[in-house]
Amino acid sequence: MTASHRRPVPLAKCYRLLNHGPTVLISAAHDGQRNIMAAAWAMPLDFQPPKVTVVLDKSVWTRQLLEGSGTFVINVPTLSQIDIVETVGSTSGLDISQEQGLDKFKAYGLETFAGSHVDAPLLEGCAGWLECRLIPEPHNQNQHDLFIGEVVAAWADERVFSEGHWHFEGHDELRTIHHVAGGHFLVIGDGVDGKVLPRSAD
Amino acid sequence: MTASHRRPVPLAKCYRLLNHGPTVLISAAHDGQRNIMAAAWAMPLDFQPPKVTVVLDKSVWTRQLLEGSGTFVINVPTLSQIDIVETVGSTSGLDISQEQGLDKFKAYGLETFAGSHVDAPLLEGCAGWLECRLIPEPHNQNQHDLFIGEVVAAWADERVFSEGHWHFEGHDELRTIHHVAGGHFLVIGDGVDGKVLPRSAD
Repeated sequence: MTASHRRPVPLAKCYRLLNHGPTVLISAAHDGQRNIMAAAWAMPLDFQPPKVTVVLDKSVWTRQLLEGSGTFVINVPTLSQIDIVETVGSTSGLDISQEQGLDKFKAYGLETFAGSHVDAPLLEGCAGWLECRLIPEPHNQNQHDLFIGEVVAAWADERVFSEGHWHFEGHDELRTIHHVAGGHFLVIGDGVDGKVLPRSAD
Repeated sequence: MTASHRRPVPLAKCYRLLNHGPTVLISAAHDGQRNIMAAAWAMPLDFQPPKVTVVLDKSVWTRQLLEGSGTFVINVPTLSQIDIVETVGSTSGLDISQEQGLDKFKAYGLETFAGSHVDAPLLEGCAGWLECRLIPEPHNQNQHDLFIGEVVAAWADERVFSEGHWHFEGHDELRTIHHVAGGHFLVIGDGVDGKVLPRSAD
């Protein structure tokens, strides 16, 4: 359990949970049902107020729940959760053989905790979480499958993210994962600093 | 020079150059001037035809060139270029003390080569390149600083990307870099595969 390591992230720095491009899990809940899915196409959109954008295909059930509730959560999963990410990215919560949709949380034994501002469940064991309120934009949603949200609360596992920076050293199992295609991911590595070059003489 | 290692990437797989969330360099040229800037907020938007989206602040000169020409390039830089990324992300091509804007390519000794479909220069030494045609969307551009492009050609350094997959092993200097904040980056690590979990018994 990571509850004891979970700390709030100031909204001014919450974009840093996504800035390095991790693959994320989007969760949403509405009208007694809930779902979670993988999304590699998510990024920050603004600093203040903090906004994010994520691409959700028309076929996914999480999108329906998100549109119904007007809220969602971006969970930033870890290397130790890679099979969960692959699983919820490869299965649908909509199962037409059942009366109700498949509850992936129950089907795969996923533990959750409640957010502070949204109905969507937050997945235990992630490295970071962003609670988001949907900013409805019909053109972007219908034309591009692009959803925009304002971040209203954010959290991180202090073992790997604190003071606005990631520090994965000593916690390889908590490193973020970055999907390429077909269940193949790249794990994030260590930090390095860039410096500004001098201009050439001429 | 990487020219001898540069290979075309099929458009159906070009999203994989961005899917793992690298920080990129956006280049554009218009009316005899050119510029290049860093952008951490870029991602794929669609597979077929391949589209991408990138956030460009109203203050940046590259945005003006991109709007003028209707084309741009997403360059995927490498660890060996980290100081270039930090430099072009920290300086402006608009220098009001000069009659013309600062040519960052000349000021910092950046070598380029020509694309196949666009006016924008492609930066030598990157791991990948996506030539893009702007899909004008005034609302997204004005309201969200969000620009959408269709990828019309793509290239990669075959030493680290081929057959639709990254393979950085043995080429650490060509790994992609992922900005967190303030010139601090995370370097991408090695690959790992996820697998789909069985459903619980109940």
